[in-house]
This record gives sequence, structure tokens and C-alpha cells, in this order.
Amino acid sequence: MNDQEPPGKPLRKRRRDPEGHRAAILEAARHTFTERGYARTTLREIARRAGVTHGLISRHFSTKERLFLAAVPGNRDLERVAAGDPVTLPDRIAHGFVQRMETDAVNDPLVALLRSAASDERTAAHLLAAMQEHSVTVYRSVLSPDAPSAPGDDLDTRVALLGSQLVGVTFSRYIARTEPLASMAPEQLTEHLTGILRHILFD
Amino acid sequence: MNDQEPPGKPLRKRRRDPEGHRAAILEAARHTFTERGYARTTLREIARRAGVTHGLISRHFSTKERLFLAAVPGNRDLERVAAGDPVTLPDRIAHGFVQRMETDAVNDPLVALLRSAASDERTAAHLLAAMQEHSVTVYRSVLSPDAPSAPGDDLDTRVALLGSQLVGVTFSRYIARTEPLASMAPEQLTEHLTGILRHILFD
Repeated sequence: MNDQEPPGKPLRKRRRDPEGHRAAILEAARHTFTERGYARTTLREIARRAGVTHGLISRHFSTKERLFLAAVPGNRDLERVAAGDPVTLPDRIAHGFVQRMETDAVNDPLVALLRSAASDERTAAHLLAAMQEHSVTVYRSVLSPDAPSAPGDDLDTRVALLGSQLVGVTFSRYIARTEPLASMAPEQLTEHLTGILRHILFD
Repeated sequence: MNDQEPPGKPLRKRRRDPEGHRAAILEAARHTFTERGYARTTLREIARRAGVTHGLISRHFSTKERLFLAAVPGNRDLERVAAGDPVTLPDRIAHGFVQRMETDAVNDPLVALLRSAASDERTAAHLLAAMQEHSVTVYRSVLSPDAPSAPGDDLDTRVALLGSQLVGVTFSRYIARTEPLASMAPEQLTEHLTGILRHILFD
């Protein structure tokens, strides 16, 4: 690749490119978490694969947990997926979830997390909780941007139930691969999920 | 225990009691599947714990799979739980599920199955599929007793989505134990689930 660099562009400058480093770290993290599971993954191994120093990862993400959360596709893209009309939020969540899983379920860290939960329940619990908190924050900002922490509402519960529906579908369709969910057309699954998520969030 | 048998009741007669044997086998099966996981459980081990012969288990249940399905509480009690007014079927499913899990989630074979899925996906898939088929049959008999196999209906899909909601809640509340589901009062969880399951089955 370096051979194709425009002449005169110093290598040193590329190495200092923070966005490029961030992307390389996230890519390496995603593959390493998927291959080795959360508990056995080290920042050192990710640094090696990304071709950066351990210290640089710490500067960008501070902890392994934060790096994991940044690397999980659904979590990472949540703001982008959720942004828009509150009324059609369920449609976007369902569509974003199915699209992401159809693209690369085998390498999805959520799938890896569910698979590794058997041997590492506390970590799985901790990470699921962190993902859920993030979802609550993002959905709340879409649903009630003027009252970001309306007391007494039950959005936490609704998001937890919504999350468990997605965890269950992930398990049935992408891990155990039971029918009829396993062979359902993505569009049909999206449609079914949209209806259920709308009920969970709004009814 | 034998010391407390009423005098004159022959031990031989007790040993021939088919209902007593069946119950002892199911009890031993439930414990063994939970402790050792599906794949590592043998009929021989269950026979030893139940104090019966291997051949007697085969006569009662024919295969390990059938024995597992008979031993899973939710599956075993499904006819009883589901029977009644079709309109309130979701209420009974939600109530039966929560009650069963609250009673003994740690020893529930569904929990064991989800936990062991990481190491044994094909078995997990196979057993989940068998449980789902059983649910479809039972729910169909409650919902449309006069048309037990109405063609073109999408009950299979609805039951699969309902099942994945329950799998997800099992995972979140009873395995990973993430909040707010983990600490929710059983009555509140039942109420939430009833609403979701009603939507999935009827809307």
C-alpha cells in the first residue's frame, strides 16, 4: 500500500492520523473479540494486529470494556441508526438490527458475547448492561429530546424488554438457527420485529 | 424410606409401580441434564440415579431426546398451562413461564440448554426446535381446536417470535442477570410479558 502513496506524503504524517488509527484499532478489536472471546482478549494483542502501540489504544479508548463497546457494531452505530422521527424509531431499530446481522452475524461481537456467556457470565452481564444503558440514552434522546431524563417513565424497562427480544432472535436465528426464523427473509423478519418493538416501546 | 413402608406391602410391588418409576426417572433426568449438560448426560447415569435399569428408561422414553423433552418443566406442563380460554392464552403462557423460572431457574433445563449452546450448538438447535414444535401443536389446539392445522396461518412464526422473547428474557434475567429485568417483581414481569405475547400471538 505504501508504494501507492502519493509521492511527498510523509509516512510519519500517516502514522499520526488519529482517525486512521482509531479505525484500525476498532477493526482489530472486532476480530480479536470474535475469535478469542472477551475474557481472553488483551489490549496488547489488539495493538499488535492494528500495528499501533498499547499506549495509543489506552489513549483512544482507556479500557478494554470501552473498546469492546465501541467495536460492537450495533452499539457503535446506534446514534446514526436511531436518529430521526420518534414515531418510526422501532422501524429503524428493527431494520438496523437485521441489516447488521445479515451482513456479518458470524463476526458480530454480540453473537460472540452470547456464545461466551456460558463460561463467563459476569462479563457477559456487565457488557450487556453497558450496551443496554447506551441504548436507553440514545433512544431517550430520540423519543424525548427536550426531557432527556424524564423521571418516572419506564423507558429502562421497555428498552430491556426490547433488548431481550433482540437477544432471543439472535440466539434462535443466528446461533441455534431454528426454523422458521432461521430461513425467514430479512424483510419479513424486519417487518415482524418492527411490530413487536413498536408495541414494546409505545403501547 | 423402606423402613416406613406399611407392613405387608411387598417391595416387589413398589418396584413395579410404573408411575413411581416414571417420576423417579424424570427427576433424575432433570438433575443430570442440568449438572452435566445434554451432550455429556447418558441414560446409564440417569438410570443409576433413579435406581432403575437402563432398559426401563428406554421402555418409558425410547431416546435421550424424548426424555429431555419430557423432563423440561415448561415443555412437560405446557398442555396444563395452555388449556383454557383462547383469549387469555398469552396471560397463561406469561404466568406459567415466570412462575416456573421463579421456582427453580438454576435447575431449569432450558437454562442449562442456553448455557451449553456455546459448546454444543447443533444439540441446542435440535432441542429448541423440538420444544417449539410442541408449543405450536399445543397453542394451536387451544386457539383453534376445530381447525388444528389451518393452512396458511402464520402460527409457526408467531410461536417462534414468542419463544425468542422468552429465550431473551431467560438470558437477561436468569443467566446474565442484567437490570432492570433481574430485580423486577415477578408480577410486573408477568404483566409486561403478557402484553408482548398477546401482541405477538394476536396482532
